[in-house]
Amino acid sequence: MKLSNIVEKLGGELLGDDTEVSSIKSLDLSTTEDLSFFSDIKLLKHLNSSNARAIIISKEHISLVQNKSLIVVEDPFLYYTFVSQILNPPKKLISGIKTTVVLGKNYNIASNCAIYDYVVIGDNFILGENSQIYPNVVIDDDVCIGKNVIIHSNVTIYSKVKIGDNTIIHSGAVIGADGFGYAPDKNKIRHKIPHVGGVTIGDNVEIGANTTIDRGTFAPTVIDDGVVIDNLVQIGHNVRVGKHSVIAGTTGIAGSVNIGEYCIIAGHVGIGDHVNICDHAVIAGFTGINKDINDVDIYKGTFPATKLRDYLKTAAYIKKIGELNSKIKNIEQQLNLLRKYNND
Amino acid sequence: MKLSNIVEKLGGELLGDDTEVSSIKSLDLSTTEDLSFFSDIKLLKHLNSSNARAIIISKEHISLVQNKSLIVVEDPFLYYTFVSQILNPPKKLISGIKTTVVLGKNYNIASNCAIYDYVVIGDNFILGENSQIYPNVVIDDDVCIGKNVIIHSNVTIYSKVKIGDNTIIHSGAVIGADGFGYAPDKNKIRHKIPHVGGVTIGDNVEIGANTTIDRGTFAPTVIDDGVVIDNLVQIGHNVRVGKHSVIAGTTGIAGSVNIGEYCIIAGHVGIGDHVNICDHAVIAGFTGINKDINDVDIYKGTFPATKLRDYLKTAAYIKKIGELNSKIKNIEQQLNLLRKYNND
Amino acid sequence: MKLSNIVEKLGGELLGDDTEVSSIKSLDLSTTEDLSFFSDIKLLKHLNSSNARAIIISKEHISLVQNKSLIVVEDPFLYYTFVSQILNPPKKLISGIKTTVVLGKNYNIASNCAIYDYVVIGDNFILGENSQIYPNVVIDDDVCIGKNVIIHSNVTIYSKVKIGDNTIIHSGAVIGADGFGYAPDKNKIRHKIPHVGGVTIGDNVEIGANTTIDRGTFAPTVIDDGVVIDNLVQIGHNVRVGKHSVIAGTTGIAGSVNIGEYCIIAGHVGIGDHVNICDHAVIAGFTGINKDINDVDIYKGTFPATKLRDYLKTAAYIKKIGELNSKIKNIEQQLNLLRKYNND
Repeated sequence: MKLSNIVEKLGGELLGDDTEVSSIKSLDLSTTEDLSFFSDIKLLKHLNSSNARAIIISKEHISLVQNKSLIVVEDPFLYYTFVSQILNPPKKLISGIKTTVVLGKNYNIASNCAIYDYVVIGDNFILGENSQIYPNVVIDDDVCIGKNVIIHSNVTIYSKVKIGDNTIIHSGAVIGADGFGYAPDKNKIRHKIPHVGGVTIGDNVEIGANTTIDRGTFAPTVIDDGVVIDNLVQIGHNVRVGKHSVIAGTTGIAGSVNIGEYCIIAGHVGIGDHVNICDHAVIAGFTGINKDINDVDIYKGTFPATKLRDYLKTAAYIKKIGELNSKIKNIEQQLNLLRKYNND
Repeated sequence: MKLSNIVEKLGGELLGDDTEVSSIKSLDLSTTEDLSFFSDIKLLKHLNSSNARAIIISKEHISLVQNKSLIVVEDPFLYYTFVSQILNPPKKLISGIKTTVVLGKNYNIASNCAIYDYVVIGDNFILGENSQIYPNVVIDDDVCIGKNVIIHSNVTIYSKVKIGDNTIIHSGAVIGADGFGYAPDKNKIRHKIPHVGGVTIGDNVEIGANTTIDRGTFAPTVIDDGVVIDNLVQIGHNVRVGKHSVIAGTTGIAGSVNIGEYCIIAGHVGIGDHVNICDHAVIAGFTGINKDINDVDIYKGTFPATKLRDYLKTAAYIKKIGELNSKIKNIEQQLNLLRKYNND
Repeated sequence: MKLSNIVEKLGGELLGDDTEVSSIKSLDLSTTEDLSFFSDIKLLKHLNSSNARAIIISKEHISLVQNKSLIVVEDPFLYYTFVSQILNPPKKLISGIKTTVVLGKNYNIASNCAIYDYVVIGDNFILGENSQIYPNVVIDDDVCIGKNVIIHSNVTIYSKVKIGDNTIIHSGAVIGADGFGYAPDKNKIRHKIPHVGGVTIGDNVEIGANTTIDRGTFAPTVIDDGVVIDNLVQIGHNVRVGKHSVIAGTTGIAGSVNIGEYCIIAGHVGIGDHVNICDHAVIAGFTGINKDINDVDIYKGTFPATKLRDYLKTAAYIKKIGELNSKIKNIEQQLNLLRKYNND
């Protein structure tokens, strides 16, 4: 692809030769055939030594490069992403429904969809244009999937799930399993609460591999437009995740949590049930949240990791921190007595 | 369904019209067709504004409601659960074994079971009455499953697994994979320890989506009757979970852990190997346990999540907590010297 | 199997009768037909009461056993592992490709491999000698798998994945899903970054059930030879795990983390993105790491779990630890003033 073609499609200013590039890579991995991008001043070392034929760069950094073609843009990282999307389009399955697909009663499948081998689908199924379902996916009754959706292999979708347009669900994800709700009796025996609420997933959502999203009790669990969820994330029943929020891997979100819009929940976070998190809040990795978050801020709660022997000392003192406090009070009192005495 | 029919089946006292209800919902979501329930005084606001036609309520709260039919019971939440179980029975697959099912040698499948498409089953298989196996499940040799069991889509069951009656296993769960055990040699190369113990799961157990339960080394890993396990939980080899205990999502339990009966292990908990947890213990969410728990109590170990800038200060002080302790000792000594001096 | 046969194969010295044993078990579980092993002085009680017919033991402990055959070796636990591997060989599927297997264009499958029912494989597939693929596995294009590999049921392998010899992948694992990378625009809308790097897994690797390993952005995510990874572990894009390192269950490793060789990462650990961990480092369970680890040591960061009422007090004090520090400074100043005054 010629640099001028890229600029034509995505904007930006071409400086230097209108050379041809075969792929786009990071500065350190680029060969002389590649386009690259400079998006972080920390990578200056790589910029100087890069073999890349051409560089996407911001105006302020032009002077750092000699003898290479440049595409000058406002946000090189975002621009790189768009170039990469053009050069690396997602695989498109061949349209059609394989003969091994098992379909239930009442379905409406747009003509240019692909449904691959050993997919099993229940009753009352809707699939929008251009959507692709990979092998061995199982979909239960009353599921409605929008346009340009990709459901990767071995995904399971329970009944009463709606999925919006352009959404991607990665392999092994389970959407709509029963919520974890039980009513205990006097003998502490739990009785299963039926969950009839389903799951509603918006447009432009991406859900990671082996992630689980439980169905709601009465109303659907909701993942709103533009939300991206990483691998091995648990989303409990009745949760609501607001637009354009992001949730990183191995995070667990208990039932009835309400996450606002544009939130960032980092990896390995735990959020207790019924917690509300305001729009634009950021939860740092490895943090446990069991109270509402009402202020836009970054929240963190990891005990700082230290060498074991230091940790053991610190941990011992922490357990005695109440004693330390008492000692300080006691010292303050004695000191006051002494001062009084000395002032007399 | 008429309220009198419900009372006939489940007990309780009907006050007001014997009206008909179509479904049961929470107070805020109920329409004028619905039965609802009042189980928590915090929901008084919703009780007052609810459109529900009839309310399940305890005797002490009757006076709070006007102009609605009431079912008066001891435990409205438990009663709601039973009503919902009647109004929302689990889907029943059509009995029979689909022609695409692959069966091994020697099987004993009760006549009214359902085994759906693309299920693959190994040798020596037993399946009790009324049990249902959803599509794309894989079951290895020597597996015995009881009555009224539901195995959801895409579950994998390795060899030598026993599953009791009325148990539900959600999609993507993996039961009986090899335990994570290796013998290191002098060169720190690990050699895989064979795991021949299998897994034994009791009656009335529910296992969440994508949860993994490893097989035992010599004897089975055991999940006892009435245990409920949420999604994305890891249960290591040789673990024993006692009757009616509950384990919430994204919790990891290492090998040879022994959890008593009626324990509550909340979400995102980590329990180290060989730990014993006594009956009725409660572990709060986001807590790491690496010592035996011998007293019935609630255990918690989350560093309190705070705003990042406060956290960073606190974390810095915590690392210096040993210094604080030394300073206090030093102050105490000086103070004693001063007091002695002043008393002389 | 006769003890002399074992010694012939694995070395060690046979003391006492050359008896026959049917299986190998731990001391407490052994019957009079079994061989057992004494590898830990803490199990002395079990040694004394064991029904085992013969014991694998080290020289120094010979005198502890009477009237049993002994195999005297340097490392009884490692020796037990090798015996168990002989007595419990992994199941071998019958060679051949089932007729329900769907194959793409261009494949090279060694003649003695087994590929079981409902496996779906994409284009350009290579499978080495003796490898076995269990039912319902899905493999995308451009995947190359070595010799003696076992891929268990319901695994998904995305495109551009290489797997070395003797590697085992457990059920539900997802190898090569898209990395969790997005470029945000001015409006905080995320744009998906294509991931073309694939995954490279070495020889003698074992990957646990429902574990996820994301593909790299430009170059592969790498799991080197001899690495063992437990269940429900998340490995982000561009991660590199060095030879013979071990990662326990429910651990999450964010993108671009570099883990050295011979590291031990215990269970329920979270490692933030771009962190480097030096060779031979040990991370204790339930620890969050967000800085490079450069010294070989054991690292731990769990807030010590305590009873809730103690925890609440401790947590309250911890939040005030800055105040404690100020108070101590203040006391020191006053004390110095007093001492000066008294010395005058």
